[in-house]
Amino acid sequence: MSIGRKLRYGMVGGGRGAFIGAIHRIAASLDGQAELVAGAFSSDAQRSYESGEDFLIARERTYASYEEMAAAESNLASGQRLDFVTIVTPNHLHFGPAKRFLEAGFNVVCDKPVTLTLEEAQDLKNIVARTNKVFALTYNYSGNVMVKEARALVLRGELGRIRKVIIEYSKGSSARPAGDANRRAAWRADPSRAGPTGVVGDIGTHGEHLARYVTGLEIDVLCADLTTFVPGRQLDDDASILLRFKGGAKGILHCTKIAIGDENNLNIRVYGERGSLAWYQERPDELAAAFAEEPPQVLRRGHDYLGEAAKKAVRIPPGHPEGYLEAFANLYRGALRAIAAEVTGQPLPADLDFPTIDDGLQGMRFIDAVVRSSARDAQWVML
Amino acid sequence: MSIGRKLRYGMVGGGRGAFIGAIHRIAASLDGQAELVAGAFSSDAQRSYESGEDFLIARERTYASYEEMAAAESNLASGQRLDFVTIVTPNHLHFGPAKRFLEAGFNVVCDKPVTLTLEEAQDLKNIVARTNKVFALTYNYSGNVMVKEARALVLRGELGRIRKVIIEYSKGSSARPAGDANRRAAWRADPSRAGPTGVVGDIGTHGEHLARYVTGLEIDVLCADLTTFVPGRQLDDDASILLRFKGGAKGILHCTKIAIGDENNLNIRVYGERGSLAWYQERPDELAAAFAEEPPQVLRRGHDYLGEAAKKAVRIPPGHPEGYLEAFANLYRGALRAIAAEVTGQPLPADLDFPTIDDGLQGMRFIDAVVRSSARDAQWVML
Amino acid sequence: MSIGRKLRYGMVGGGRGAFIGAIHRIAASLDGQAELVAGAFSSDAQRSYESGEDFLIARERTYASYEEMAAAESNLASGQRLDFVTIVTPNHLHFGPAKRFLEAGFNVVCDKPVTLTLEEAQDLKNIVARTNKVFALTYNYSGNVMVKEARALVLRGELGRIRKVIIEYSKGSSARPAGDANRRAAWRADPSRAGPTGVVGDIGTHGEHLARYVTGLEIDVLCADLTTFVPGRQLDDDASILLRFKGGAKGILHCTKIAIGDENNLNIRVYGERGSLAWYQERPDELAAAFAEEPPQVLRRGHDYLGEAAKKAVRIPPGHPEGYLEAFANLYRGALRAIAAEVTGQPLPADLDFPTIDDGLQGMRFIDAVVRSSARDAQWVML
Amino acid sequence: MSIGRKLRYGMVGGGRGAFIGAIHRIAASLDGQAELVAGAFSSDAQRSYESGEDFLIARERTYASYEEMAAAESNLASGQRLDFVTIVTPNHLHFGPAKRFLEAGFNVVCDKPVTLTLEEAQDLKNIVARTNKVFALTYNYSGNVMVKEARALVLRGELGRIRKVIIEYSKGSSARPAGDANRRAAWRADPSRAGPTGVVGDIGTHGEHLARYVTGLEIDVLCADLTTFVPGRQLDDDASILLRFKGGAKGILHCTKIAIGDENNLNIRVYGERGSLAWYQERPDELAAAFAEEPPQVLRRGHDYLGEAAKKAVRIPPGHPEGYLEAFANLYRGALRAIAAEVTGQPLPADLDFPTIDDGLQGMRFIDAVVRSSARDAQWVML
Repeated sequence: MSIGRKLRYGMVGGGRGAFIGAIHRIAASLDGQAELVAGAFSSDAQRSYESGEDFLIARERTYASYEEMAAAESNLASGQRLDFVTIVTPNHLHFGPAKRFLEAGFNVVCDKPVTLTLEEAQDLKNIVARTNKVFALTYNYSGNVMVKEARALVLRGELGRIRKVIIEYSKGSSARPAGDANRRAAWRADPSRAGPTGVVGDIGTHGEHLARYVTGLEIDVLCADLTTFVPGRQLDDDASILLRFKGGAKGILHCTKIAIGDENNLNIRVYGERGSLAWYQERPDELAAAFAEEPPQVLRRGHDYLGEAAKKAVRIPPGHPEGYLEAFANLYRGALRAIAAEVTGQPLPADLDFPTIDDGLQGMRFIDAVVRSSARDAQWVML
Repeated sequence: MSIGRKLRYGMVGGGRGAFIGAIHRIAASLDGQAELVAGAFSSDAQRSYESGEDFLIARERTYASYEEMAAAESNLASGQRLDFVTIVTPNHLHFGPAKRFLEAGFNVVCDKPVTLTLEEAQDLKNIVARTNKVFALTYNYSGNVMVKEARALVLRGELGRIRKVIIEYSKGSSARPAGDANRRAAWRADPSRAGPTGVVGDIGTHGEHLARYVTGLEIDVLCADLTTFVPGRQLDDDASILLRFKGGAKGILHCTKIAIGDENNLNIRVYGERGSLAWYQERPDELAAAFAEEPPQVLRRGHDYLGEAAKKAVRIPPGHPEGYLEAFANLYRGALRAIAAEVTGQPLPADLDFPTIDDGLQGMRFIDAVVRSSARDAQWVML
Repeated sequence: MSIGRKLRYGMVGGGRGAFIGAIHRIAASLDGQAELVAGAFSSDAQRSYESGEDFLIARERTYASYEEMAAAESNLASGQRLDFVTIVTPNHLHFGPAKRFLEAGFNVVCDKPVTLTLEEAQDLKNIVARTNKVFALTYNYSGNVMVKEARALVLRGELGRIRKVIIEYSKGSSARPAGDANRRAAWRADPSRAGPTGVVGDIGTHGEHLARYVTGLEIDVLCADLTTFVPGRQLDDDASILLRFKGGAKGILHCTKIAIGDENNLNIRVYGERGSLAWYQERPDELAAAFAEEPPQVLRRGHDYLGEAAKKAVRIPPGHPEGYLEAFANLYRGALRAIAAEVTGQPLPADLDFPTIDDGLQGMRFIDAVVRSSARDAQWVML
Repeated sequence: MSIGRKLRYGMVGGGRGAFIGAIHRIAASLDGQAELVAGAFSSDAQRSYESGEDFLIARERTYASYEEMAAAESNLASGQRLDFVTIVTPNHLHFGPAKRFLEAGFNVVCDKPVTLTLEEAQDLKNIVARTNKVFALTYNYSGNVMVKEARALVLRGELGRIRKVIIEYSKGSSARPAGDANRRAAWRADPSRAGPTGVVGDIGTHGEHLARYVTGLEIDVLCADLTTFVPGRQLDDDASILLRFKGGAKGILHCTKIAIGDENNLNIRVYGERGSLAWYQERPDELAAAFAEEPPQVLRRGHDYLGEAAKKAVRIPPGHPEGYLEAFANLYRGALRAIAAEVTGQPLPADLDFPTIDDGLQGMRFIDAVVRSSARDAQWVML
């Protein structure tokens, strides 16, 4: 879906030193199909300008605020006009910029969770529908090659009817009081900026999306026990959640930031009537598969025995590890295809495969249910 | 604690082809300190006699029932008299033989769960106290060397205050309807013989004991979601349980028999304020240990850097794998030391380390609470 | 092959504190088919007597030397007579006792390497042939279940023609000068007791046997670079050996005692035209198998998909780890079947599967070739 | 070392569908510091033009041959002029373009092995010296973060004196006759284009460089057994090589293309007097470290406990896997720093860390020695 030039994009947030901004810049450009040409990189104007220099952005397209950026960029001629805007701000600053740029006619890529509140997510869904722009949400783990293979195997029925899904996202980086601050992420512990939950909005929501992406199952009811283990922290840092899916499958989703020794241990196991799958994000190139009465297998990225979705998402041969950035870039690859179609006035491809506003809204429903359950001392609630 | 001869024991249950009977015979004799000399190996007299032949037991000490065995063996002279009896029958046949042999003056080793019901367990505790005999319960996973090291590290405070404990016991052997029958274990699916739960009484109870053994923590309240996935099965085959321990730690215990691809995947992870531990039964010789800011370690059986309990429980050097039988034999080793003291009229050693009737009773309280919670559609209940 | 009683055996060497003696005692008795009733446990008479007490052996059948033992035991009546003798002395004391007991009409189990010199091995082969007794050699790793599966797969042609075999045996226990002494194994560094090589006679010879057992291939020529890394050591502690097998396959066998961090890392990988296998002794229950164009598999002990030899060698179900002792006991199980036939005057079973004097002789040819190659500064030599 | 704009580069080779060209394009641009603006992407002019379109290169800077490219690009004004040229052609087309562009005043990045013959490598070293341009060679595995940590640990003396180094590079992709052809790599099996060895020039040379990079040791003599297992292949596909390093360390380097089941299994283990390290390319984010008497550790990318070189080479936090492309981009990052200095007339940074012509020349000496040894039926030869 090349349009003969790189797509031009601007960034909101993601200034000097920000973790996720750097990730988006690499991921967006990895395949040489997009270039960053503008940005409001920080709510601190000086930091925004300095960041623009770091990223080799022209001074005149570096802005002191996203509002200024939206106003100025809306006036540019088509040969300069941004094809999309990427939003990588803290959670409370997703909805505003997304609304502003969509309504100004720009396609949008936005970090997760999609908004601060469930209400904002519902509003944003309406805005996306009304503006008819591309809106991609970076639940990036669904960009992993072997996650796509897992999804294909489940949806093709290889496991039979799904019985149980176990999702874990375990980190130790915030096991101690100073953890958050060290990582330039003080906002993550602040309810006014992070939202009503600490660990679930930050990482648990990845787990919910991953489970839904792989299995197609939707959570019906859940029972969530949230805990704040680290003294002085305003938001929870640990969640144990029992799940009942529509259709009868059961599950557990647990996520934590206090697991010393764990780095970014997101994993999912899916057990069906005929077989099971297990994927561990820290070893992304492999997918364990077991079928009754047969020796267990380890499916690996890059081989001919994989399905189409997994084959298309590969850049390099087996045994040459792909990592987090390549998976993130796969999500962008899909979004860029959609955006290229949109800006050239063509119909969107039929086989798009990236998270959308619908995934964002479902994610917010999940977060909302977790908070409601926890507020009732971990009683069962409907999603 | 050698008494200059092998200890003599008899067996109730465990006839030809029974899985757990063979395990007990190997474990009891592994160190050459005990010999099987009598048995009521089956409730089918003919099968008991044939089993006795298999095990090279004299015909006159092979019995048609445990009652016959208790009567006959009680009359033997001290040079022939059994030092202990091992009970390896289905759950509903633990209490009767245990009571009978204890009251006849024999020490007892019994398989888990200790009884069919909580009430029986309470009765048995009184009987053990009254008869003052040794009663050892084979929660065998606590016999593993690196489990002993884990316990020592936690109790010594190396992890700081414990925050979270995750215990999993996942098997796939009964993922299909025929599974149980194939494995001569039809009784496990029969409430009148197995008790009120399928998966928790069979394997989940190992997890509860392991967590308590390693951490010293007791469960305060729990929320258990039991499921029967395999059609036609009378008892549950899957359990997801949220735990709150006394003192503020949280936990998850999940166990299942429908996890195709999992063999005997019992594992425990313990997260504290300063560090964490993880032990996987299928790789028993290693214990993962992580402490904040330090490279993760893999502690391994047999090294000088381990504590006393782990050192004493080792038979062979590092890198020569010890397995399930050796761990089971460690439990027997402790029980035999106690029994040797008892039969020679000496005080029991102070450093005994094997599960007792107290562990059995606590295990039955756990099972009872799980069943009560599940009966209320997975509400929280006290233990 | 039960003969209605336990087989009686005596032990030469293996006194109090000796590593390999304890292994043999457990392995011989693990299945309850043999009992230790006599021994010359040490060349130090007092230590022999004390060891006999430890092992609950009657004083009158504990001896000050193997010669005394052979003389006395030869005179016992058939109801008491030893069915076999196990020799677990240092290498220079294998030939003498083996010859003495074979010629006195006893079956023999002997530790590896079979003798101190190639000449002794040739003599012993003649003695075994002449006396027509069972002679079993404890190349114990061939007793592992998944090694038997590997052998079956190769011999059945599943891998196609074998191209390359890589065998490694890497230990770190003697990486420092004090290492050997600490482990009651000073004799291993003494050429007059260990033989002409340190690392190859001790551990490399296991690798040669394992490769031959699994593949059926015989080494044609080799090029061996022996090194003594630890100052002051009389014998080599490291060997790198290139192999060319009869028939065109190539290989590498490397073994070392200076590999800090390695415990007992014996492993073998076999690459054929159609597939490959890999087995690691420290994870004995699994066998990695890969076939061209297919997802790699992990075959695991205890499953129905394995072949007959692997099925027969299993004691406990999948996921309940078997270890070093169980594998060693498998070797004894085979030897006991042969011995039971011999002592009851029946023909030996056709499906025996344990190392014999032929394996011992081939092992000595290998050691001899390694020493010859090294003496010529690592030139190629014929076996 | 930003110069306020992206560095401009051209590419020789690497057209549509070529594996390594795509790698270089991603790696060069990953950090947003370089952009591809010109190329002679194929010796087939039409394919070069089509490739240029794929890569969004202006038609007037897409060339039919490297000679044409060198002539045209030499005439461009400084605001357009290439800062460097990347050469990603088959081995026989490294020397010509490298010479041509260096002599035209361009910096060069070149794929390995540096040339077809040892003589070319010696010539090229002189040309680099004479032109005084930056010449970077893509032994890309030295770009891995944990390889840099390994090197730092060894050079800092943490392992003590090095005793043994084992390097393996095992692939199965060419285990069958059709393997090479399938992968657009027919030239790899053609001596006139690949050079005198198949497996060593392709992958073994990575192993030699890795060993030298990590340990600082140079090979003194070697004994190489090359084999061609796949019928009809002109060049070897398997090599087993014994190494003796200057200073007394020993080693083994083995590499193969016939190892069904292995993907890109490059690994190195280094054993010293006090400790050992092991790194496996397929799990690049971890480095196993063992020190005598201590529990083994697993050092992991991204942590504060690592040294400076490893810290500087990291892009994303622990647990977010980095892969092959990120390591390759680390090599480019170093080269780009040097090139930025060169084009702005500044002295090269003192802390450069990428392979140079010296590494290329040493690599060719290694290949030459391997071929000489093999020609003498695997006798020992000096490097």
